[in-house]
Amino acid sequence: MIVTEILLEFFLETRQHTERLCKPLEIEDYVVQPIVDVSPPKWHLGHTTWFFEEFILKHHKEGYTLFSDDFAFVFNSYYESIGKRVVRTDRGNLSRPTVDQVYAYRKYVTEALKDLLEGDVSAEVTKLLTIGIHHEKQHQELLATDIKYILGNNPLMPVYGGDISFRESVKETPQSQWTHITEGVYEIGHNTPEFCYDNELGRHKVYLHDYAISNTLVTNGEWIAFIEAGGYNKTLLWHAEGWDWVQKNNIECPMYWHKVGDKWYHYTLEKGLQEIDESAALAHISYYEAFAYAQYKGLRLPTEFEWEVASKHLDWGDRWEWTESAYLPYPGYKKEEGALGEYNGKFMVNQKVLRGGSVATPSRHTRHTYRNFFQTGLRWQFTGLRLAK
Amino acid sequence: MIVTEILLEFFLETRQHTERLCKPLEIEDYVVQPIVDVSPPKWHLGHTTWFFEEFILKHHKEGYTLFSDDFAFVFNSYYESIGKRVVRTDRGNLSRPTVDQVYAYRKYVTEALKDLLEGDVSAEVTKLLTIGIHHEKQHQELLATDIKYILGNNPLMPVYGGDISFRESVKETPQSQWTHITEGVYEIGHNTPEFCYDNELGRHKVYLHDYAISNTLVTNGEWIAFIEAGGYNKTLLWHAEGWDWVQKNNIECPMYWHKVGDKWYHYTLEKGLQEIDESAALAHISYYEAFAYAQYKGLRLPTEFEWEVASKHLDWGDRWEWTESAYLPYPGYKKEEGALGEYNGKFMVNQKVLRGGSVATPSRHTRHTYRNFFQTGLRWQFTGLRLAK
Amino acid sequence: MIVTEILLEFFLETRQHTERLCKPLEIEDYVVQPIVDVSPPKWHLGHTTWFFEEFILKHHKEGYTLFSDDFAFVFNSYYESIGKRVVRTDRGNLSRPTVDQVYAYRKYVTEALKDLLEGDVSAEVTKLLTIGIHHEKQHQELLATDIKYILGNNPLMPVYGGDISFRESVKETPQSQWTHITEGVYEIGHNTPEFCYDNELGRHKVYLHDYAISNTLVTNGEWIAFIEAGGYNKTLLWHAEGWDWVQKNNIECPMYWHKVGDKWYHYTLEKGLQEIDESAALAHISYYEAFAYAQYKGLRLPTEFEWEVASKHLDWGDRWEWTESAYLPYPGYKKEEGALGEYNGKFMVNQKVLRGGSVATPSRHTRHTYRNFFQTGLRWQFTGLRLAK
Amino acid sequence: MIVTEILLEFFLETRQHTERLCKPLEIEDYVVQPIVDVSPPKWHLGHTTWFFEEFILKHHKEGYTLFSDDFAFVFNSYYESIGKRVVRTDRGNLSRPTVDQVYAYRKYVTEALKDLLEGDVSAEVTKLLTIGIHHEKQHQELLATDIKYILGNNPLMPVYGGDISFRESVKETPQSQWTHITEGVYEIGHNTPEFCYDNELGRHKVYLHDYAISNTLVTNGEWIAFIEAGGYNKTLLWHAEGWDWVQKNNIECPMYWHKVGDKWYHYTLEKGLQEIDESAALAHISYYEAFAYAQYKGLRLPTEFEWEVASKHLDWGDRWEWTESAYLPYPGYKKEEGALGEYNGKFMVNQKVLRGGSVATPSRHTRHTYRNFFQTGLRWQFTGLRLAK
Repeated sequence: MIVTEILLEFFLETRQHTERLCKPLEIEDYVVQPIVDVSPPKWHLGHTTWFFEEFILKHHKEGYTLFSDDFAFVFNSYYESIGKRVVRTDRGNLSRPTVDQVYAYRKYVTEALKDLLEGDVSAEVTKLLTIGIHHEKQHQELLATDIKYILGNNPLMPVYGGDISFRESVKETPQSQWTHITEGVYEIGHNTPEFCYDNELGRHKVYLHDYAISNTLVTNGEWIAFIEAGGYNKTLLWHAEGWDWVQKNNIECPMYWHKVGDKWYHYTLEKGLQEIDESAALAHISYYEAFAYAQYKGLRLPTEFEWEVASKHLDWGDRWEWTESAYLPYPGYKKEEGALGEYNGKFMVNQKVLRGGSVATPSRHTRHTYRNFFQTGLRWQFTGLRLAK
Repeated sequence: MIVTEILLEFFLETRQHTERLCKPLEIEDYVVQPIVDVSPPKWHLGHTTWFFEEFILKHHKEGYTLFSDDFAFVFNSYYESIGKRVVRTDRGNLSRPTVDQVYAYRKYVTEALKDLLEGDVSAEVTKLLTIGIHHEKQHQELLATDIKYILGNNPLMPVYGGDISFRESVKETPQSQWTHITEGVYEIGHNTPEFCYDNELGRHKVYLHDYAISNTLVTNGEWIAFIEAGGYNKTLLWHAEGWDWVQKNNIECPMYWHKVGDKWYHYTLEKGLQEIDESAALAHISYYEAFAYAQYKGLRLPTEFEWEVASKHLDWGDRWEWTESAYLPYPGYKKEEGALGEYNGKFMVNQKVLRGGSVATPSRHTRHTYRNFFQTGLRWQFTGLRLAK
Repeated sequence: MIVTEILLEFFLETRQHTERLCKPLEIEDYVVQPIVDVSPPKWHLGHTTWFFEEFILKHHKEGYTLFSDDFAFVFNSYYESIGKRVVRTDRGNLSRPTVDQVYAYRKYVTEALKDLLEGDVSAEVTKLLTIGIHHEKQHQELLATDIKYILGNNPLMPVYGGDISFRESVKETPQSQWTHITEGVYEIGHNTPEFCYDNELGRHKVYLHDYAISNTLVTNGEWIAFIEAGGYNKTLLWHAEGWDWVQKNNIECPMYWHKVGDKWYHYTLEKGLQEIDESAALAHISYYEAFAYAQYKGLRLPTEFEWEVASKHLDWGDRWEWTESAYLPYPGYKKEEGALGEYNGKFMVNQKVLRGGSVATPSRHTRHTYRNFFQTGLRWQFTGLRLAK
Repeated sequence: MIVTEILLEFFLETRQHTERLCKPLEIEDYVVQPIVDVSPPKWHLGHTTWFFEEFILKHHKEGYTLFSDDFAFVFNSYYESIGKRVVRTDRGNLSRPTVDQVYAYRKYVTEALKDLLEGDVSAEVTKLLTIGIHHEKQHQELLATDIKYILGNNPLMPVYGGDISFRESVKETPQSQWTHITEGVYEIGHNTPEFCYDNELGRHKVYLHDYAISNTLVTNGEWIAFIEAGGYNKTLLWHAEGWDWVQKNNIECPMYWHKVGDKWYHYTLEKGLQEIDESAALAHISYYEAFAYAQYKGLRLPTEFEWEVASKHLDWGDRWEWTESAYLPYPGYKKEEGALGEYNGKFMVNQKVLRGGSVATPSRHTRHTYRNFFQTGLRWQFTGLRLAK
């Protein structure tokens, strides 16, 4: 069946790309977990593999033997319904299995899937495989950002290197302009035969009032102006919770920024510590900071619906753009049965939606209906903002 | 001006009602703060008074002398822009000022306001006074729930007594029925000349899809069935965050519930520990629990918009009803300038909207557009739920 | 029996003195617990009473009826073996029983004991009563220091007042001189028929090398010199643990000290905030600070044995003097059977011995063999230091 | 000078032994830090090397160039006076420098020292070198115990392997007997020309009362009896602090013990999970547990002085034996000037002395005057106990 051939190729290419992302790493880099939100690269490699083993091979391949009983335990993540997960904060304590063993595990599972896909496969397997591929793509982005965190918070600030280029300093159009959208009923959500996550469904109507959205992202230079205007010290610009976050964590600038003398530098994967390009799009801010900035400008963040409707007029994909929208189910949202249902729905509380994509998002993993989501204080993703009014 | 006379009466009645709420208390009850969310009654008495002094008397009454410089410091709350607040967790450490001094403070400020209101007052003062009255009414509800927490968590479980009756066990109609609302554009938000909070504005349009909403609240009996069905142990019913909350706090039933032998009791203000009435509306649950219950029933919570549109068909006002909606600004929301702007807007992140009202809500303080909001794990308010589909 | 008459008088005088200590308090002051180490005065009143009820009346008075079953639960403290104690951090959450009820409890128990002591009493009762009296005297000192903490950390800094004078600013002899003690074997521990705690026994021999001990306590003026010499910033003066304590708590001066302009003030019970008398004995420092000061002077703290042997040459009793000795059992130490055995022995780890007494120590509660003990970071007692070499 | 040749050989042998200890490790094992007390093996390798570079090469070798400026920062430990240390909890976050780089660092420093030692060296260098060697030997023991923790807490429980044998299960003489020591004055502390740490000086007299000490260590079998007698549940056996430690950490058995069915197993370096040998000496208990066990037997732990005096009659060296003595300076103790003074003295508070040595202690690193010290709740060393009375 031709669908399978394309899928198989997609699968193999995805598996390879994950490993290519890790190629510049030293073995030591695979192991550490400096903060709870960052997972060891080794864990990403194993976890994405476990997903295929657990949901496809175990149930749909006759005679399949688990690579290791222990790995199911070690590389399970949030799937509470499937057995005792390794508590997230413990991932960085585990030196075993070794990186070599994890690569062997990857190979074993990839081969078993290749073998399976050469035969007839059910629609169910096709569906699970597609989810597994996209799941691995999500982890590719996390791999990039987690590696950045691991290297960028090391006092030696090593360069990542490798042959994958992350154009971290993306220049913005100098002239910010407003795109105006007219009041009315709009349709929101995925509506093509292509793959999407359950949280992009069901497609539904929303009423939007007249609004305008900027055609550019906020730049580093604009952020420096915010810092110099005392933005991090002006209580009234912040949510109460955001202000507590600033105080508790002594936040004075975006993540990875360092002031040396009177100049601002930032850590980048490709070149290590670099002077900041003021005309490039800002990255690595929390929702709290995005909100405070909008207050300071007397403007606001767009909702995810405003963003989606306006997206065809925008140049997007360099930064995950914080929106004002809370991450909630769409009307008619149905979560998957069983463990797969834990994928998205269980996170639909106290998180914000980000739209767009980033320089670390893998190919074929962006859509104008894609709903990314993070907690409001997190900054290690390539997060930025776009203003609305 | 007649408006002022009505306002003055409203003001005095409000001041008196606050004190009537505290009448059954022992002096000791005024002082303690068992958890960070509960404030000492003494603090409520002082804080509501400080609000009038700070925003009206200080600026609008010629020759006004502060009752005490220190009180401004002690009874300020979240108004970061006005001076160093007493950190919330410290309120329960302060034995001084004494209860008597706080009542003297109340009297002093009430008299000064009476005096002011006998003359000509500006529209600005009228507006601030109205806000101050409603602010005090909000604290009346908090007084009731905080007193319940203080007494209900004391090993002696004392009865509150007094002459104000809180009908805590409100019977629900036995037959639950669905009200069906048809798809279309609806208007949401306040639109009368009466007072409302800034967060109920601006009035705007939303598109609602067909939905149905229950005419009854979930009852104690239904909740017992949920407990007996293992609801608190079934991971898949819960948000990830909610599940962590259950585990960390060993939650097994609503707040104030106690199992004695094989019967469920709950602490009530009027009668202390009482056997639970299964036909009465459930109270004292978190959003996490409300959500899990809806999952267990294969249903969902209404959004705040669905609730508002359906409200004319519902019998509401006994429980603050958790909705699925995050607490966010309406389109066109404008926060007040300066410190008053801290009233609502700064909390518009990571909280959920509750609609309705409760047995502890003071008279003239409910509206079908009223947006109450709390963090998702809080239970000491009279919170309940109503299902939708 | 004459012994009993004296004991009865001692008992009654002790009970009265406790209440006299509380006389200047407002009811509100009885209730709060600003830090875990400080207990609400109400709790001290109840706990000392519970001790007599639990250990004497309950077992030795025929037909005795408990004042209240609940009180046994509320006022038990560290006696793990007798039933679920109120976790220490919860004491400040309990508004009930009221202060009036606690005084009624005191009266009830005092009367019942008077009644008991009018008849024949066993040696066992005599012994328990003596312990109970000394137990209450210990709590008298805690009452004084806890009240100081409650009032001295209130932003209103109220004066304590009352008719009991605590001479907090005790002048030291201007000329510090060294008392030299010659090497040899010395006897340590209690050896009179008078009452002592179990931890002062058994009397035993220690070998002391030649040493010298100062005849004066370190003064406020000397401490200001230490501050000005950067003592709080010089890592090498401190234990590793002490340095962490300084950093974590931002310690820059003794407890209750405030710098106003370029002068040092301290809060005192009798007069509120007062300018510091440089010639008076320092108070309210931790062991960590005492040790760092000795390092800074190139000297050391005495051991408790050195202190005891030299005590007859010293003018002591104004400050609890930190010693270098860890709080450990003497050779031959026997702890009491059962719950009374929890009195002292269970604290013999990770605490330091303090010798002397303080301006808050009640009469007849000091001995040159008395071993007070606290954790190394605590400062709310009247703690000071004396140097040795 | 012949002294130097012996020292050089001692130095080289020590350096080699450290590396031999790490030989069985996978690179991943070098990196992790599962708890704050355990350091990554990589860090031990670097830190012991940094010590030689910082204290000898930098000051005493002309023209010496630091291997890397960054390493001084990364591998400094507690030496607060020498520059910003890497906070201990952060060590496990650092993937760089790599293990290879650390071995290159070791080689570079070892060679530089060899070169230095071939010329004339001062007494100062000889002294520093000796300290550096013993410092590295201390870290050899920590390496063994940290590796045990890293592997023994991994769900895969890998075997350590390698050619160094740790005889973890040391059989005790079946018949416990008491050695009686007569009351009198004894001398304590180091008094040979051999190396010792500053904390073993100055030699001084102590008075000991009659006592008896067991000739055997407590065995696993005896500990199982303690468990079965409910030792971990009997409050009165424990210090208050110890009881809190048991409750908070859910302690039910020694570290590394696992009950499988009705049999006890423990993790060992050489063979992984093994059934427990009841006749072997117990290991991996805290001071709190040691104390509770002694209470349960109606006996006590020896003081470090009793242990030292009796040591010639004992068979010791298999377990670090908890003593009742707090870790305090001996009379006349002088700490080193400057950073080396941080070696021992700064830890002399709230720790207990352990005497003896263990199966992980390197050769030539035990002495009957050696004072090991740890905080009272730590168990990852090979700690055991011997009773006294």
